[in-house]
Amino acid sequence: MGTFDAVDVIGVKRDHGVLSPEQIDWMIGAYTAGEVAEEQMSALLMAIFLNGMDRAELNRWTGAMIASGERLDYTGLGRPTADKHSTGGVGDKITLALTPLVASFGVAVPQLSGRGLGHTGGTLDKLESIPGWRAELTNQQMYDQLSSVGAVICQAGAGLAPADRKLYALRDVTGTVASIPLIASSIMSKKIAEGTSGLVLDVKCGSGAFMTDIDRARQLAQTMVEIGADHDVVTTAVITDMSTPLGMAAGNALEVREALEVLAGGGPPDVVELTIVLARQMLASAAAQVEVRGVPGAGITPGSPQAVRRARELRDADPEQALRDGTAMDRWGDLIRAQGGDPVAPLPWARHTTDVVADADGYLATLSALPVGVAAWRLGAGRARREDAVQAGAGMVLHAKIGDQVRRGQPLMTLHTDTPERFNRAIEALDGGWTITAEPPEVSPVVLDTIGA
Amino acid sequence: MGTFDAVDVIGVKRDHGVLSPEQIDWMIGAYTAGEVAEEQMSALLMAIFLNGMDRAELNRWTGAMIASGERLDYTGLGRPTADKHSTGGVGDKITLALTPLVASFGVAVPQLSGRGLGHTGGTLDKLESIPGWRAELTNQQMYDQLSSVGAVICQAGAGLAPADRKLYALRDVTGTVASIPLIASSIMSKKIAEGTSGLVLDVKCGSGAFMTDIDRARQLAQTMVEIGADHDVVTTAVITDMSTPLGMAAGNALEVREALEVLAGGGPPDVVELTIVLARQMLASAAAQVEVRGVPGAGITPGSPQAVRRARELRDADPEQALRDGTAMDRWGDLIRAQGGDPVAPLPWARHTTDVVADADGYLATLSALPVGVAAWRLGAGRARREDAVQAGAGMVLHAKIGDQVRRGQPLMTLHTDTPERFNRAIEALDGGWTITAEPPEVSPVVLDTIGA
Repeated sequence: MGTFDAVDVIGVKRDHGVLSPEQIDWMIGAYTAGEVAEEQMSALLMAIFLNGMDRAELNRWTGAMIASGERLDYTGLGRPTADKHSTGGVGDKITLALTPLVASFGVAVPQLSGRGLGHTGGTLDKLESIPGWRAELTNQQMYDQLSSVGAVICQAGAGLAPADRKLYALRDVTGTVASIPLIASSIMSKKIAEGTSGLVLDVKCGSGAFMTDIDRARQLAQTMVEIGADHDVVTTAVITDMSTPLGMAAGNALEVREALEVLAGGGPPDVVELTIVLARQMLASAAAQVEVRGVPGAGITPGSPQAVRRARELRDADPEQALRDGTAMDRWGDLIRAQGGDPVAPLPWARHTTDVVADADGYLATLSALPVGVAAWRLGAGRARREDAVQAGAGMVLHAKIGDQVRRGQPLMTLHTDTPERFNRAIEALDGGWTITAEPPEVSPVVLDTIGA
Repeated sequence: MGTFDAVDVIGVKRDHGVLSPEQIDWMIGAYTAGEVAEEQMSALLMAIFLNGMDRAELNRWTGAMIASGERLDYTGLGRPTADKHSTGGVGDKITLALTPLVASFGVAVPQLSGRGLGHTGGTLDKLESIPGWRAELTNQQMYDQLSSVGAVICQAGAGLAPADRKLYALRDVTGTVASIPLIASSIMSKKIAEGTSGLVLDVKCGSGAFMTDIDRARQLAQTMVEIGADHDVVTTAVITDMSTPLGMAAGNALEVREALEVLAGGGPPDVVELTIVLARQMLASAAAQVEVRGVPGAGITPGSPQAVRRARELRDADPEQALRDGTAMDRWGDLIRAQGGDPVAPLPWARHTTDVVADADGYLATLSALPVGVAAWRLGAGRARREDAVQAGAGMVLHAKIGDQVRRGQPLMTLHTDTPERFNRAIEALDGGWTITAEPPEVSPVVLDTIGA
């Protein structure tokens, strides 16, 4: 690797130039090693924010972030792999049912997840409301569980893309978070380092999401799909609506309950629909892997009769059936037990509840995701700082969705918390968060667009 | 002063917005106090580099830098004040003769100067080749010397614009030096804090200068003239040629000798011309001060007969006469003695010299400032790092200027150094640095443009 002067590298991007592969490798490597100063990287990040990176630069940038740490490898498992990443929203518990569902078709699902910060919840926080369940696994434990159960949901190890952790902390304090190439490389470096060969991205769009504009959401999705392709990960994306919460629950144990309804063949239609859409894309990604590469660890070569049959099975798989017949629920039990959890233990409830009621007769015309997310957060479901604890039982249960007919005085939602002094601030957050109209509103579809499928 | 979030302030400029006066005051104040991190300021500097600042923002930004430290005040001196600032070039010894020349007309000249870094020399390094002379004065010593001698050339105290020192060090390592608003505010904050009421800027343009493009040089000059006006400092600027060295000498004692020639009524025509042009502008600036404000410390009120007479005297002053008749030289002696120097002591010579000769008959068509400056630097006249020492005698003496007829084998320049092992690298730097043509070339004027006069 060559040696460069950080000021020269910054100058290239500042002057609207294109960084060379060697400059990118050196800059990320030297920054991770502490040889390029924080103030130098932040100047480069601002130049990238304002002047962008082209596809080749971004591909290399992401590659250098991956190369800053270890890269897991699951080709020896003898199964195709597929993972899902969501950019985060209110009531987004999709990972919980989706992971065992896809695993039930013989696809290994290495789902590295995070904790919540601010108004969006984190998958690990939700699962930790299950007695005994633990999020921390070693790389070997992950591999073994993928081999035995075919699915794992756990915290990303510190060894994966350490450049990303450092860059993310820096972006957070320097106003350089909301940059499509920087967001895309952050997400993709972790997902590629985690070792999956297939990836489905759920890019949320709307008031409760990081992206509020559909064109920016499409651009982010397209950028991530390109990075995946450039790193040999079969990647597709859906843009989904986050103007209103997903499902009827936001909060940790409340969302696990809703995921269990889905695994039992029920659940809110929007949650079921999105689970099925994402499962089909993950299965299609797995099928594409089998067609292109065979299944290395199982002796299946590309183009062989077994490869053709396995790919067809994956494309013909019926995830709705697997929810109805209990196959996915069985896999859920295996997954939870493998990580120390008791899948049949009662889930915690918050000690106090209060209702918010409709103030008119009519139709629920809007129910904005952001205020519901902020209310759940204030009730104790989320955290303001990384070191805060969350309440397992706190959150919001909705009794009506957009388009439902409501009557004055009817409960629209129930607030749950262990700390009832928080009700007032949660209710404040909900002020103006919904509207009731005389005429039925138009209802947005859940899936707004599909990219790269 | 309000309190802001640095990330919000960065975001305003990043998104092409206008920073409020309160945001600017807070950001500069909190940065100087160490409450805004280096990486946050560098992100803002890059956003300013790429998105600019409008006149009101830049005025406030400069004001906040001035307010970060002490601001000197010379209104009690009973004289108008005028200072000159040059953006730096090769062979630029103008300050040396100009300061006593202007002071000889009763204008106080508080000339805060710096040391050289890289291929451009520093006024303090040049004066330190005079036995006994010292650059460090306290604010009180400066004031007393301005009162007695009417002129001072010294190092800027650490109390002036400390924000600038911190910002300059940060810009140096983050690729944010070459920004017109950041350069302009850096220069002007120090000059305004130093307490002068009149300022003439010599913006160098050409291969040996920071600005190589005349339009950028004009833009920098215009920006600084506006900042001066907005802070009640009568400010004008000249754009002068730095494609070729100024005068016949580059190096510390070598340049002092050339300044002494000018003070004795001789010297190279380009050095004399620029000295006279700048002296007339400084005198005009002093006259304008007297017209607008009177002379507060001398009981002269604006519009009074004494004010009218004093302003006319300053406008009618004849600097050429003061060089011819020894008045300026007398003031030079006072200035050097006041700071511990011996104006009649012999100046040091380097122990070794070698000549570079013409390789053809014809006319010297180009003689580029940058290679001459680099050669002088490599011979020991300049420093690569701030902590390096310089050689008093090292440097370059030119024997021909652009347009002069030369003969093959004739010495074009003489290299001076105490460390003859440096000759080779200095001669390498000169390779391609001049051309000789059969036809006489066009000769550029010294003064390319005047702004704000």
